[in-house]
Amino acid sequence: MADNKKMVEAITSMDVDFAQWYTDVVKKAELCDYASVKGCMVIKPAGYALWENIQKKLDARFKACGVQNVYMPIFIPESLLQKEKDHVEGFAPEVAWVTHGGMEPLQERMCVRPTSETLFCDFYAKDIHSYRDLPRVYNQWCSVVRWEKTTRPFLRSREFLWQEGHTAHATAEEAQERTIQMLNVYADFCEEVLAIPVIRGQKTDKEKFAGAEATYTIEALMHDGKALQSGTSHNFGDGFAKAFEIQYTDKDNTLKYVHQTSWGMSTRIIGALIMVHGDDSGLVLPPRIAPVQIMIVPVQQKKEGVLDAAFGLRDRLIKAGFSVKVDDTDKSPGWKFADCEMRGIPLRVEIGPKDLEKNQAVLVRRDTHEKSFISLDNLEEEIGKLLETIQSDMFARAKAHLEAHTSQAVTWDAFVDTINTKPGFVKAMWCGCQECEDKIKEETGATSRCMPFKQETLADTCVCCGKPAKKMVYWGRAY
Amino acid sequence: MADNKKMVEAITSMDVDFAQWYTDVVKKAELCDYASVKGCMVIKPAGYALWENIQKKLDARFKACGVQNVYMPIFIPESLLQKEKDHVEGFAPEVAWVTHGGMEPLQERMCVRPTSETLFCDFYAKDIHSYRDLPRVYNQWCSVVRWEKTTRPFLRSREFLWQEGHTAHATAEEAQERTIQMLNVYADFCEEVLAIPVIRGQKTDKEKFAGAEATYTIEALMHDGKALQSGTSHNFGDGFAKAFEIQYTDKDNTLKYVHQTSWGMSTRIIGALIMVHGDDSGLVLPPRIAPVQIMIVPVQQKKEGVLDAAFGLRDRLIKAGFSVKVDDTDKSPGWKFADCEMRGIPLRVEIGPKDLEKNQAVLVRRDTHEKSFISLDNLEEEIGKLLETIQSDMFARAKAHLEAHTSQAVTWDAFVDTINTKPGFVKAMWCGCQECEDKIKEETGATSRCMPFKQETLADTCVCCGKPAKKMVYWGRAY
Repeated sequence: MADNKKMVEAITSMDVDFAQWYTDVVKKAELCDYASVKGCMVIKPAGYALWENIQKKLDARFKACGVQNVYMPIFIPESLLQKEKDHVEGFAPEVAWVTHGGMEPLQERMCVRPTSETLFCDFYAKDIHSYRDLPRVYNQWCSVVRWEKTTRPFLRSREFLWQEGHTAHATAEEAQERTIQMLNVYADFCEEVLAIPVIRGQKTDKEKFAGAEATYTIEALMHDGKALQSGTSHNFGDGFAKAFEIQYTDKDNTLKYVHQTSWGMSTRIIGALIMVHGDDSGLVLPPRIAPVQIMIVPVQQKKEGVLDAAFGLRDRLIKAGFSVKVDDTDKSPGWKFADCEMRGIPLRVEIGPKDLEKNQAVLVRRDTHEKSFISLDNLEEEIGKLLETIQSDMFARAKAHLEAHTSQAVTWDAFVDTINTKPGFVKAMWCGCQECEDKIKEETGATSRCMPFKQETLADTCVCCGKPAKKMVYWGRAY
Repeated sequence: MADNKKMVEAITSMDVDFAQWYTDVVKKAELCDYASVKGCMVIKPAGYALWENIQKKLDARFKACGVQNVYMPIFIPESLLQKEKDHVEGFAPEVAWVTHGGMEPLQERMCVRPTSETLFCDFYAKDIHSYRDLPRVYNQWCSVVRWEKTTRPFLRSREFLWQEGHTAHATAEEAQERTIQMLNVYADFCEEVLAIPVIRGQKTDKEKFAGAEATYTIEALMHDGKALQSGTSHNFGDGFAKAFEIQYTDKDNTLKYVHQTSWGMSTRIIGALIMVHGDDSGLVLPPRIAPVQIMIVPVQQKKEGVLDAAFGLRDRLIKAGFSVKVDDTDKSPGWKFADCEMRGIPLRVEIGPKDLEKNQAVLVRRDTHEKSFISLDNLEEEIGKLLETIQSDMFARAKAHLEAHTSQAVTWDAFVDTINTKPGFVKAMWCGCQECEDKIKEETGATSRCMPFKQETLADTCVCCGKPAKKMVYWGRAY
């Protein structure tokens, strides 16, 4: 019985029930589990190792563009949260309130940070004096809490892990540049490391961040045709600076307000990894982010020389810079193969007595299940190339899926029909009024995902109201 | 005026007012700042870079001994906190309580984790079934909250960052082995990386962790002769397992309770780094943990070739694996020298027109202020050796300080006199009764720091009551 739970059981097919497939994969690949605390997650070793890799690679990209890491307090006094009007309206309904410290009631209640704009602003107001103090390009890795009603592992939970960058600049131009720079860092990271193609664009006013002048986003398309907002970057202009009185003395000796940005990516992106690349055998991880890139499975491992060969191969591959494990448990090879697949390990290497006789090993790609043979001499270089091929093939497939599931519509009837019959993005023209956005959401369930940087003119009129169009928008149902 | 705050101002001398010296260093080296949230810290880039290095090096040591990282929820429902009697008594008086989620009161209040034994136990109870599931060797890096009355940067704050390891084992022996193994990981890390010598030993029952069978500790001695508990490792036996019903089916098919441990090290250790190595010029960082190991200061930097030479040297040293910066601001060399010293950068390299003529650079050690000249040819190896010398010299000095400030006392009068006149540890025999511990604390302010693994027999009788002695104890005033 104790062993049963470890068995590789069949998971629901994605085509039968995508939501159930997702839940099954999260559970069977041991990424995370529900906690006794309602709406919160326990991130298990396989899930946390993914997050550690995401942190490592994203943080290196941050540092390469001058970001410095800091740590701000976990609590926000209520008076601080209330300083920026739009911001408090956006967040107050979904924060957790601390009212007692030890046995005593607090004089002022505090919320657990849902995001830390107010804390960074409060700090910058005291810490920034001169133009010499600018720019400030700070970031923190932490957890945040938002009291969500309905939750799903990684996609929406009451607590999640993320990074939040908060910057202060002397000019509006510099703030805008940083906003777009960080959006591009996210987009490049998603495409180059996670093999997830994204649409880069700006959010409509309705969808922008509480307190921002402009919000930019990268939108990814999941296997089921639903969109997932995968990273956002906000330009605050001087709105927060005025609310928090963050001023600096410029070279001309006059006092000026700083211009600010913030940008974040969260454990949500693990949900995207699962839903973009996964298949009916489980998780499929791109080699550049996989905590274990290669699993060596010894076949007939009790035969002389097999385990030695497996561990020898492991040491060679580790020395060549790969992340490698050997599955030498007493399970059957078939069980081990299925287990590797469930966990999404990019490459499986099988080695048994017959292979040793032929001085070869068997390679099996996780993404295509394709099998090949490789000589044990100098296999390091071949395996390196194969992992890079897997990485680029995974991106190409996801890109083809995104393109195949991006439609366009010029008339209202075509728009409604496309949303209802063809999962994915629908490109359509928009007049810029929130009434049309509201109507589209109400009647089709689709929201404006973004106004892409790459604009096209599909028609002259809004797909909803027929008035003159201002922007082409990506619409879609979303997580 | 804006520039004034950046100037290197004199700090209080450690001998005049050690507490003020500490506060000055923390502030002037820009490690952390007070937050608007009372008792909480803002960890600034220089402080957080130290923590990142501590995390990186400690985490590598964890992974080398089989530790897996996970993430548990930030909240503990009150009923969960109450499951282990001693534990709740120890922590309930100092936790922050969340009572509302959004606009609505919670059905059950939750505290922000002060430590996560209860959460790990709750998870293990559901997740561990068979002997095959053991051992579990999990760790998390996170922040915790304890509602302290009086706070000091890094040493005691209402929120701090740490790692907490939580393990579950099949046998009592294995749990005890893991407890000591992790204590040794902390001790080796302190001595080898932070150049902080420590006393390894066991806490008395009075000082042990709430809910533990035994607590082990590493104790370091600060420059002012006060002790700092620098890392702890707890053996819980099966106490938590019984309270949370964490059972597994053993090979013989019987149900057994697991045996557990936990162990933690926190941002407090940054306080130890400051107070063990710092001097009247500011922070002094050991090369193995310093975020910037070498600062190159160009002299007469406007003269042709100087800045080019400085940046050329930087690139060479970075290529050789060092962490290097050039201070090319428009401040004077004297200001830059003092700034490097305040920030504790282990090695300063000065280079000016005269040095270039002679094909040399000037090296200045932060720890000794010793100056030497080095040829620009092949200086990488020499600099590497010098940094290692600084590291080992710093450890040797701290070790000599620890030994010079460790006394022993056999009689009560000698004990009281030594505690009052000679700052540092006092070794003395103890009968094992809490009455004596209480009396010592009340009359001298000293607490039992630990019963060291290396026991000595200084006398046959307790230094306090004269009854037969059971243990030799390190006593001292502590942070």
